[in-house]
Amino acid sequence: MINKLCIIGVGLIGGSLARALKAADSVGHVVAVGRDVEHLKRAVELGVADSYETSISDAVADADMIVVAVPVGSMKTIFAELAGKIKSDAVITDVGSVKGNVVRDAIDTLGDDLSRFVPGHPIAGTEQSGVEASFSELYKGQRVILTPLEETDALATQAVTKMWHAAGADVESLSVEHHDEVLAATSHLPHALAYTLVDTLAQMHEHREIFQFAAGGFKDFTRIASSDPQMWHDICLNNRDALLDILSRFSGDLNKLTKAIENEDSESILKLFTRAKTARDQNC
Amino acid sequence: MINKLCIIGVGLIGGSLARALKAADSVGHVVAVGRDVEHLKRAVELGVADSYETSISDAVADADMIVVAVPVGSMKTIFAELAGKIKSDAVITDVGSVKGNVVRDAIDTLGDDLSRFVPGHPIAGTEQSGVEASFSELYKGQRVILTPLEETDALATQAVTKMWHAAGADVESLSVEHHDEVLAATSHLPHALAYTLVDTLAQMHEHREIFQFAAGGFKDFTRIASSDPQMWHDICLNNRDALLDILSRFSGDLNKLTKAIENEDSESILKLFTRAKTARDQNC
Repeated sequence: MINKLCIIGVGLIGGSLARALKAADSVGHVVAVGRDVEHLKRAVELGVADSYETSISDAVADADMIVVAVPVGSMKTIFAELAGKIKSDAVITDVGSVKGNVVRDAIDTLGDDLSRFVPGHPIAGTEQSGVEASFSELYKGQRVILTPLEETDALATQAVTKMWHAAGADVESLSVEHHDEVLAATSHLPHALAYTLVDTLAQMHEHREIFQFAAGGFKDFTRIASSDPQMWHDICLNNRDALLDILSRFSGDLNKLTKAIENEDSESILKLFTRAKTARDQNC
Repeated sequence: MINKLCIIGVGLIGGSLARALKAADSVGHVVAVGRDVEHLKRAVELGVADSYETSISDAVADADMIVVAVPVGSMKTIFAELAGKIKSDAVITDVGSVKGNVVRDAIDTLGDDLSRFVPGHPIAGTEQSGVEASFSELYKGQRVILTPLEETDALATQAVTKMWHAAGADVESLSVEHHDEVLAATSHLPHALAYTLVDTLAQMHEHREIFQFAAGGFKDFTRIASSDPQMWHDICLNNRDALLDILSRFSGDLNKLTKAIENEDSESILKLFTRAKTARDQNC
């Protein structure tokens, strides 16, 4: 049971965590923190939070667990504001989709509180955003990756693990670097491709007809292009090296397919499609 | 009411059409044609067809409507086999995802029967294939594009339109060329991207972990990579020019995004993602 949980940034991810913990009777009081008072009031009205604060230092003063759920580009400012203001046994975690830059931000700002910071990333979400889209079942059966550092207190990692278990998630550990490589491949690259595809089509002069004749496959394929642009902008820049690496591999492979189509190289096309179908059927 | 319907190639598309017409009481007898007797028997057992034939000329002799539902690379052989063997008022249509090459194949082979050939393409399907995956609701509320030629008999177009209406679909007309451009953008390119992405990831040495940490967004994005490789190989080669054109636009745009990420050009990234989100939210 977490006595007082402080959620900084109550959107889909932070809001769904609060809802899940309340539904599981695993939290006493939830305080929501943000800059937009109307939004915070809405979180309280919806029952996601019990109270709200616009001042981080007031909100974190007596919190037992602090979850930072803001876009990764804003983590550093938040860490700097809460450093030194929390209880000596309070635990901090985040939900950022990139871990390398967030960990660097934490090292730069958290000082003595760094040992009680557990970097985390729930592999869950929808293309929706905002507290209105939050729901208590979001994490049920989904994975949360923690990337604890050498200096991370084992008790802090335990507390964060327990919290995610209570929310219904499975918890696994990866190194910071490995996390960023794996997520660049499975999440950041597909988002970049989906945004680019929709934008390519939207620029064509017959774009109205193009979207009109799009079927279910296209809608599934581009669903993630409805995700929050600021959040994904932050992720792309904060996982720049890993994303550029996988983008370069993908572009090389797409170029090979393009050449095969140009040359009517039947065998190469059929081999590629067959390999891909086999891999997806086996793994998804 | 179609007295006798002949479906050449009873997979997901042909099988679902037969099921829909039977459910709507819009067909008398359905004969399934193919090379694989076990598969044809299965179609009869499932109630998709009333009888089967392995000889095209026997099957089409007294059919009123002939639907050719084979991969686009096999259309020409089928057209050549049925030309001159059908009743003088029988109507032929196809369900190919590419129209230019199919129409050229029809012009080359159908002779006097060409005026009763109505090129068609139901914009529906799933990543599944085979008669086992067929279901009567597949076309409900979906679009079917017909691309009649100058020489196409208006009564033939009417008969095919009526058939698809009975199956629950909306029917629209496009020119052959326009169809192939629009479908290259909304369907053929996304399939090429999904196959390539899964193959890129499957080649990485940590591919097991990569697929293990893939979330719902990835599964949606790559669903179409589970589609039939032979079918999509045929589509890519048969719509080569339109596909290469849109591939080149897409690759150019992806290259621009890559450069923007390399240069940490925040404004360009945010603009692209915002334009794409707006276009998708408005159109899908």
